[in-house]
Amino acid sequence: MGAQYDISVDSASFHRIVSRLTEDQTPRVWSLLVTVFGELAQDKGAQISGLMLRHMREHIGIKPEAMRVALHRLRKDGWIENERTGRTSAHHLTDWGRTQSAAASPRIYSRDATATRAWLIVSDPSQSQPQGRACGVWVSSNLRIATTPPKDTASFVAVLDDAAQIPAWMKNKVCALQTRAASKSFFETLKQVREELAGADALSTIEHAVLRVLLVHAWRRIILKAPELPDCVFPQDWYGPQCRALMADLFDQFPKLHLSDLQDAVENAS
Amino acid sequence: MGAQYDISVDSASFHRIVSRLTEDQTPRVWSLLVTVFGELAQDKGAQISGLMLRHMREHIGIKPEAMRVALHRLRKDGWIENERTGRTSAHHLTDWGRTQSAAASPRIYSRDATATRAWLIVSDPSQSQPQGRACGVWVSSNLRIATTPPKDTASFVAVLDDAAQIPAWMKNKVCALQTRAASKSFFETLKQVREELAGADALSTIEHAVLRVLLVHAWRRIILKAPELPDCVFPQDWYGPQCRALMADLFDQFPKLHLSDLQDAVENAS
Repeated sequence: MGAQYDISVDSASFHRIVSRLTEDQTPRVWSLLVTVFGELAQDKGAQISGLMLRHMREHIGIKPEAMRVALHRLRKDGWIENERTGRTSAHHLTDWGRTQSAAASPRIYSRDATATRAWLIVSDPSQSQPQGRACGVWVSSNLRIATTPPKDTASFVAVLDDAAQIPAWMKNKVCALQTRAASKSFFETLKQVREELAGADALSTIEHAVLRVLLVHAWRRIILKAPELPDCVFPQDWYGPQCRALMADLFDQFPKLHLSDLQDAVENAS
Repeated sequence: MGAQYDISVDSASFHRIVSRLTEDQTPRVWSLLVTVFGELAQDKGAQISGLMLRHMREHIGIKPEAMRVALHRLRKDGWIENERTGRTSAHHLTDWGRTQSAAASPRIYSRDATATRAWLIVSDPSQSQPQGRACGVWVSSNLRIATTPPKDTASFVAVLDDAAQIPAWMKNKVCALQTRAASKSFFETLKQVREELAGADALSTIEHAVLRVLLVHAWRRIILKAPELPDCVFPQDWYGPQCRALMADLFDQFPKLHLSDLQDAVENAS
């Protein structure tokens, strides 16, 4: 299903930006809403009005029905709760939802890698490894890369930092080929979006908010699939650092909005 | 076959020392002769007379026949050559034999480990390893410990030095259980020999030479079975460092003899 602009949105350049960031596909709405709440209403007490959601939905090209289904699912899953006051409703994250959102935020919004040092942990190959319990990424049955060294002395441990020569086969095991391909593709998208934005009319407050949500959403789907490890352990075709840098530039250009300013804007636009 | 002293040797304490060092067994004579030549006649032009060999043989308790067979074998294998001058014969190492002997000497005679640093080389577990061609010790199918790092970047390399925490399973793979047991047993022997020597009469020049040959021979059979790696990678039950220290003490007490002094001594004793 192609993303369709609501007729109330008429900026052609913004339309192109939305198309690029959604790759002309309607995003999974429940997942997009997780991004919306994380971006705009992570603070305790912060609420997103039904009106604000309608504006976002229209800018992104999401059908009302799809939004209703997604909100229902998120409520059922314990992410959000809603309150009705008269004819209007407002949604907010549950405590659990806020915790989840806060845990992911540093990785999504950081300009730099959130991990700077890692350890290669070489465990006894004759022992079966409790892979489930150990943190980090297993690069083979007895080789693991983690950001915390083990407490016991049963394994050999080597520091992996910028000075370490890490062979390609090891780096390649750190991050799935699909995620690496997605990072490259998103890096291209970001460059195009930056170009579009340079030639676009000044964005409205709602467009500004939607732009940030779509940027964050697209990046979130990539960065949270990659392990939280320093850049030096990633293979060459992982474009995480490049994406982070461009995201940071765009965030500088389009800083985080105050929820109240955005609420004012949607009320004035209605 | 128990080692039997020739009646010409009459020092009871020296007899006990020989018994300890030969563990009351006749050593493999060809192998012992390799030690004799390495200890006494490694210099180009150095020769060991038949008379000298006879004295050593008698002190150690080797039958004349066994010595003849061993000399024949060493000549056939290209280790030694002999020259006859009238009724006497003299033996010397071939160039090849001298090279072999010189290559092993540093490890046998050194007070310290001849390797001080090693590298753990982690190669791609999905690739079959050319184990035959790579130097060092394989501790698993893709883990190797070597004293030279590889030239290519296909492996991950970590320094193994005194500061490295090397787990027991890795150390245990470095050196065979049998070799470790032999080192412990030899360490006990060395302590006993040192005690015997303290209570023994002053050794004759020939006894001094035989003592050194037997010490070197027993140690050679252990140290050359262990890999040439720094002490830090060896397991706790490897007594190499302790043996080296005691060997060095005994060598200080019984320094290397000049071949000519020994030759004079055997001629005077005959």
